[in-house]
Amino acid sequence: MKNTSDILKQIAFDERGLVPAIAQHWQTDEVLMLAWMNRQAVEKTLSTGQVHYWSRSRQSLWRKGETSGHTQILKEFYVDCDGDTLLLKVDQNGPACHTGEKTCFFRKMDF
Amino acid sequence: MKNTSDILKQIAFDERGLVPAIAQHWQTDEVLMLAWMNRQAVEKTLSTGQVHYWSRSRQSLWRKGETSGHTQILKEFYVDCDGDTLLLKVDQNGPACHTGEKTCFFRKMDF
Repeated sequence: MKNTSDILKQIAFDERGLVPAIAQHWQTDEVLMLAWMNRQAVEKTLSTGQVHYWSRSRQSLWRKGETSGHTQILKEFYVDCDGDTLLLKVDQNGPACHTGEKTCFFRKMDF
Repeated sequence: MKNTSDILKQIAFDERGLVPAIAQHWQTDEVLMLAWMNRQAVEKTLSTGQVHYWSRSRQSLWRKGETSGHTQILKEFYVDCDGDTLLLKVDQNGPACHTGEKTCFFRKMDF
């Protein structure tokens, strides 16, 4: 896939081979979560349209929602100015957070 | 400041003492950038209301916009479910990106 290899060239993976990926709901613009991708996660996400991440704790590839059913369908894929962060606009099925909340950012702090 | 120390306790800084912080425009909901914070950056941001980050390349604290004037005023501060990512809703003065673009995520990839 020409596009996938072109996109991978734009990404500056860190010393662990990872890049942070922000998932944002494509319609509500709500920021849902941040997770990490390696090269393989990017490839699988682009080839299947289903968002895949790299689990740092389990050291394995996971398809978001593979156990919960709360999958993410990729709608738009952005690489930031210096290539070290991704922004994914996604169609989120069900809650994004493992707690059952719609987004992982449900804890607003008073300051 | 009681609130600041309470908030700091919710944050799981990584092995480098850093946490990624997503800046989102408080009114347009546009995702503007991702940068890193250490403990001091969080403290300065909460105490001044001006967003501060930690520069990994320069190894120093910086107030966003200190040279460009493109400051960020903190409006809302969120800690995610497991404490390892921050979401800041900000009032962005001028472009967020050093390239002059409104957001660092101006490169949309076709896939």
